[in-house]
Amino acid sequence: MKKLLFTFLITTGTILFSCQKSEAQSKDYKDARLSVEERVEALLPNLSLEEKVSQMRIFHANIGVEADEKGSLKLSDRVVKKLKLGIAGIKNPAEHMDALAAAKFNNELQKYIIEHNRWGIPALFVTESYNGVDAEGCTKFGRPIASAASFNPELVNRIWDVVGKEARLRGMHMCHSPEADLVRDPRFGRMSEAFGEDTYLTTQMVTNAIKGVQGDYEGLGKGTHIGAVAKHFAGYGQVLGGTNFAAIEISDRTLIDEIYPPFEAAVKDAKSLGIMASHGDLNGIASHGNPQLLTGTLRDDWGFKGYVVSDANDIGRLHYFMKVAETPEAAAQMGLEAGVDIDLYAEDAYALLPEMVKKNPEIEKLIDRSVRRVLRTKFILGLFDNPYIDIAEVEKGVRAQSSLELAKESDLESIILLKNENNTLPLNKNKKTKIALLGPLVKENTTEMFKSVVGKNIQFVSEKGFHLTDEKGGNPKLLDKDPKAIAKMVEIAKNSDLTILFLGGDEFTSKEAFFTNAIGDRATIDPVGAQDELIEKIKAIGKPVIVVLKHRRTLSINTISEQADAILDTWDLSEFGDQSTAKIIFGEVSPSGKLPVTVPRSIGQLPFHYSMKEINYKKGYLFMEDGPIYPFGYGLSYVNFEYSNINISNSEITPDSVIEVSIKVTNTGAIKAKEVVQMYIKDEIGSVTRPDKELKGFDKIELNPGESQTVSFKITPKMLKFTGLNMEKILEAGSYTVKVGSSSENYLETTFKLKK
Amino acid sequence: MKKLLFTFLITTGTILFSCQKSEAQSKDYKDARLSVEERVEALLPNLSLEEKVSQMRIFHANIGVEADEKGSLKLSDRVVKKLKLGIAGIKNPAEHMDALAAAKFNNELQKYIIEHNRWGIPALFVTESYNGVDAEGCTKFGRPIASAASFNPELVNRIWDVVGKEARLRGMHMCHSPEADLVRDPRFGRMSEAFGEDTYLTTQMVTNAIKGVQGDYEGLGKGTHIGAVAKHFAGYGQVLGGTNFAAIEISDRTLIDEIYPPFEAAVKDAKSLGIMASHGDLNGIASHGNPQLLTGTLRDDWGFKGYVVSDANDIGRLHYFMKVAETPEAAAQMGLEAGVDIDLYAEDAYALLPEMVKKNPEIEKLIDRSVRRVLRTKFILGLFDNPYIDIAEVEKGVRAQSSLELAKESDLESIILLKNENNTLPLNKNKKTKIALLGPLVKENTTEMFKSVVGKNIQFVSEKGFHLTDEKGGNPKLLDKDPKAIAKMVEIAKNSDLTILFLGGDEFTSKEAFFTNAIGDRATIDPVGAQDELIEKIKAIGKPVIVVLKHRRTLSINTISEQADAILDTWDLSEFGDQSTAKIIFGEVSPSGKLPVTVPRSIGQLPFHYSMKEINYKKGYLFMEDGPIYPFGYGLSYVNFEYSNINISNSEITPDSVIEVSIKVTNTGAIKAKEVVQMYIKDEIGSVTRPDKELKGFDKIELNPGESQTVSFKITPKMLKFTGLNMEKILEAGSYTVKVGSSSENYLETTFKLKK
Repeated sequence: MKKLLFTFLITTGTILFSCQKSEAQSKDYKDARLSVEERVEALLPNLSLEEKVSQMRIFHANIGVEADEKGSLKLSDRVVKKLKLGIAGIKNPAEHMDALAAAKFNNELQKYIIEHNRWGIPALFVTESYNGVDAEGCTKFGRPIASAASFNPELVNRIWDVVGKEARLRGMHMCHSPEADLVRDPRFGRMSEAFGEDTYLTTQMVTNAIKGVQGDYEGLGKGTHIGAVAKHFAGYGQVLGGTNFAAIEISDRTLIDEIYPPFEAAVKDAKSLGIMASHGDLNGIASHGNPQLLTGTLRDDWGFKGYVVSDANDIGRLHYFMKVAETPEAAAQMGLEAGVDIDLYAEDAYALLPEMVKKNPEIEKLIDRSVRRVLRTKFILGLFDNPYIDIAEVEKGVRAQSSLELAKESDLESIILLKNENNTLPLNKNKKTKIALLGPLVKENTTEMFKSVVGKNIQFVSEKGFHLTDEKGGNPKLLDKDPKAIAKMVEIAKNSDLTILFLGGDEFTSKEAFFTNAIGDRATIDPVGAQDELIEKIKAIGKPVIVVLKHRRTLSINTISEQADAILDTWDLSEFGDQSTAKIIFGEVSPSGKLPVTVPRSIGQLPFHYSMKEINYKKGYLFMEDGPIYPFGYGLSYVNFEYSNINISNSEITPDSVIEVSIKVTNTGAIKAKEVVQMYIKDEIGSVTRPDKELKGFDKIELNPGESQTVSFKITPKMLKFTGLNMEKILEAGSYTVKVGSSSENYLETTFKLKK
Repeated sequence: MKKLLFTFLITTGTILFSCQKSEAQSKDYKDARLSVEERVEALLPNLSLEEKVSQMRIFHANIGVEADEKGSLKLSDRVVKKLKLGIAGIKNPAEHMDALAAAKFNNELQKYIIEHNRWGIPALFVTESYNGVDAEGCTKFGRPIASAASFNPELVNRIWDVVGKEARLRGMHMCHSPEADLVRDPRFGRMSEAFGEDTYLTTQMVTNAIKGVQGDYEGLGKGTHIGAVAKHFAGYGQVLGGTNFAAIEISDRTLIDEIYPPFEAAVKDAKSLGIMASHGDLNGIASHGNPQLLTGTLRDDWGFKGYVVSDANDIGRLHYFMKVAETPEAAAQMGLEAGVDIDLYAEDAYALLPEMVKKNPEIEKLIDRSVRRVLRTKFILGLFDNPYIDIAEVEKGVRAQSSLELAKESDLESIILLKNENNTLPLNKNKKTKIALLGPLVKENTTEMFKSVVGKNIQFVSEKGFHLTDEKGGNPKLLDKDPKAIAKMVEIAKNSDLTILFLGGDEFTSKEAFFTNAIGDRATIDPVGAQDELIEKIKAIGKPVIVVLKHRRTLSINTISEQADAILDTWDLSEFGDQSTAKIIFGEVSPSGKLPVTVPRSIGQLPFHYSMKEINYKKGYLFMEDGPIYPFGYGLSYVNFEYSNINISNSEITPDSVIEVSIKVTNTGAIKAKEVVQMYIKDEIGSVTRPDKELKGFDKIELNPGESQTVSFKITPKMLKFTGLNMEKILEAGSYTVKVGSSSENYLETTFKLKK
């Protein structure tokens, strides 16, 4: 530490000395008429080495960016020193203030930063935002896994548009979201932060999230939205054993065909301003030290122009955790060479670069490369020209009524009806009924939320019964079974006409495993605690049992699935979640969500996603049923949708043609309802083994009772490409089957041939 | 079928026509003074296309190679037709006859074959032999996973030497064994056929097995041993989900550093005559259609000169199962081009080659390439010069007393003592004791086997109690709990001084999954049925409970491990298994087996092997203990071995030097005992992420009470090589830790540096 401080003092001296000399060069970069590239080149040469390196570091506000009692800026000495050199960005400033206070505070902070570094370089204020801005007073939407269940990318686009606007109004400029990882291992505590198991669905959702949060890319400088950072590049959803920070093993072909496409689309289609590297080591190479990945694939192949930011402390971790760098300096050099432009948090990585340049002046070129990318982002975001928030706009823009309504709309499209024996649902809201709301996932306001949806004929009795975990600090523990609590709930259920059971997992049963003493991954996916026993006892009463599932990882709900009369899978909805659930239960809206993942019977079936190769399904396991409990894309409705008349425009496709498959869908039910029509393609024979089927299109439609619609999907040669024997993307002549229907296991099919 | 027959007739015509012409050329190949290569080249040009293709096919004897009532040859029409063209080989002829009858029968069969094909080409008679020759009347040894637990390669060498001799005396020439796969997924029904999870241990065992079964390689022509076929190349132990025939995903670096070495050593060191390809598709490329694997790696890189045989029907499967070939013909061509020389069983693959040559004469060159390899093998084995068994040798050579004793010796070295609370074991064979032998793994002769080891003071009461599965045809079912049977066993235990419980899995709970209706893989590894309940009830009586585990897959024995006073893990021993177990229990010999696998607490911990990267262990799972139940290399003894004085000959190694690590091991106990001293090396920092530790040496020693021995291991630069960033094997300067001890988790350590 002493050494670092000494270095810093020398640095400051250097700055003062070089100050006069550089001012002449610095005239142009403030001229908004110049192009972004011209401004970057005008500014960069002015910066001292130390200033450059500061443009490659983001620190967290918790090291000393606070407000005093009056809400004014209060900076720690450490932060003051840092800001003298300018800074790439600060994570989560003002996160615990409401939007208005945050906007004012961030304006003050930005002003301080601009005025206290020689070139007036503003900082990026950074947040996370996977279910709304991660800050006080912003609209809370459902988690990505829930919005993925909507199978409605346009809806996701609108959600993230609100997120981008709310974030910018608080004074934020970038979000470390969305996740473009495929989550195929429900042991992994972070699965709810991503959009499910499928490449195509995730790609649609990620690109719409980025386009939403960034708004009009060309208009990013107007200051209405923020930049996105798609993460975690690459393969982070596939950590071995589902444990955070573990190694990742994925063959190159799977990487290219299944894991990369959401990232490639994030770069090429959605123009994500940033990419975050993954904690993981990918096939033996630490992602933060992988030039092939971060420069070769990302920039040379895909043309990415933005910046790559490290995940928290991950450049330092190349040394002390991944153990692929002999020293902190070697770690810094490895990250720099690989193409990580910004070091998030670490004090033992890019902080060392100025000293390293003295020994090896060559690396300053790499530093310049990274600083260009960071400055470019700041110019694109208009930070030099318009660094402050218009305070007058904040309150009307954050938590606007339309945003809250959007959160509810999103919930309604995300709830999945997994089971509905004897049309248990919807319930009649006018019929005098006494309903028990029971179980560990009942929240304080659940009854209130349910009451808001129905009239006085419905009476609710609510009882949480027991908690699943102790919810205390450190690693949570499972609580012992509480027979009294179960008995009490059974008694309430007996005295009610029906029971709605709130089951699943609390926030402590599935979360990001930061540290050894803050784990969140699990080795089983069975519902924890006495939940199976609870439903068996309630069901034994003989009255209808409706289950509302709330959870952040896929659960193997064997018993629940067997016992419940009806199941609504809600994952983790918005702040209005229970109200939205009540609206579905009482038939205001027909459910239309579809599973964005496969639901296995047991953790022992992993890996298990619908698009695996046919050969993976040929053999079952001893002593258990084959297949999943519920397949990918599955979800019932209150009406029946009849699929008929599958038709293909041409039974042949060529490398230059596009054909179309169409199907007639009819709502044969009595109410208006939405349905997700899904198109899967199977390459019957390939030179490499091919997936059993792959989702290549879906369309969410709404039909009135009796109404029919013909839904059509384009089939393009691009959809049929895959990585062949020679590791190049190829198009192969042969037979294909196209399957169109209501889930990955329920469809009509037709065939076509590719001729070359 | 009609078409095939027609082709056959034409073929026969051709043969008769060309017969005269070729005889001149055929003189030389029978001359034993010529080299193998000269003989091959002399013979090959004589063969018609159809004869060549027949030298690329093996059929199973069950299509019509039988004995009549007198034991004489009875061939089906189909077989007669096949044999007119000669044949590469026949699988399992005479498998249900005793050795003498088999030898006579096989002599007669070989004579028929030689006399009924134009060039007098003998056939290879092929068997499997992973735990002794897979035929009636041969010595039955423990399964490979059990012999791996001996950590005694010399013992394995002697076992397979017996196997080779017994097989040859029956008239066999090749065995489709041993397995060089690493078995790291206990869901896989075949895990007991291989030598465990570790690269180094498997390499030692596989090379010794091959050297044993092949005898003196240069002397293979003497007819005392048989050729080996190492299988399944490559990655077959890593089928996804542990289900047979599933896809395999392994990164190239892991393949090279962990999966390939046992195969590479089988080829380069042990000179295996054959290699069998794997059912699986490896990273999207079907192994049977993978020229990079079967020709590039195997032949070009490793110099393999033998033949590659398909696994059963797998060339045909390239079309109808893997779906990487559009037609059976394309499948045949793919297998041929990849380098599969012999088609095992299929009638829809290489059978099509003669017709295919008419359209594409070029492929005859590839046919010649394969036929050369097959003929070469036959010459090496001396089949042309000495095709028959000396019947006089058979009976004294098969099931010789020394072989049976070897089976017992191997058992004694393979039994692993997992737990021995309060020195429960060994039992005193002279003390009057009433012992209950209970549980589903008790066999009919268990009591008899136990009695053979003790005197009259020990009284046994035996009760199997219940079966685990219905053991009927088709897929086995778990049997319902039988409370009466449990009560009966508890009663017996109450009336005994102690109980030995035989638990684990029967042969139906873990086996090769041939077909959909013959599965053998499992999604959990918990002991099935009422076994946990049984031990809890017996233990509650308050008397000592000793568990003998018999099983063919790793089981997560959480409850057993907690409840038992002592546990002997016997896997699947020889035909004398229970007697060997009794010898250990009564202290005739101290146990010395060590776990060849990691024993996980749950299937949800997979993948879980000791040599994973450190980063895989950093985060645990919620709601369960970290780590395995028992680690790799673990196994107790009846004595204590004290490890001291770890010493390294030089703290630096260079690319040209060898250093030595030594350790003093002292038997501080009261009896003679064996111990497996294990050396693990950890590369502290690498340019790619490195294993937490890797077994690089072990030595099984025997020490008298109070005796000490200094055990030393050479550390060579070759041991430290790994596949670097550029996919080339490299040697990297830096720090290494060497750990020497009694298991992968119990050791003393020292360090050294590699200087370049």
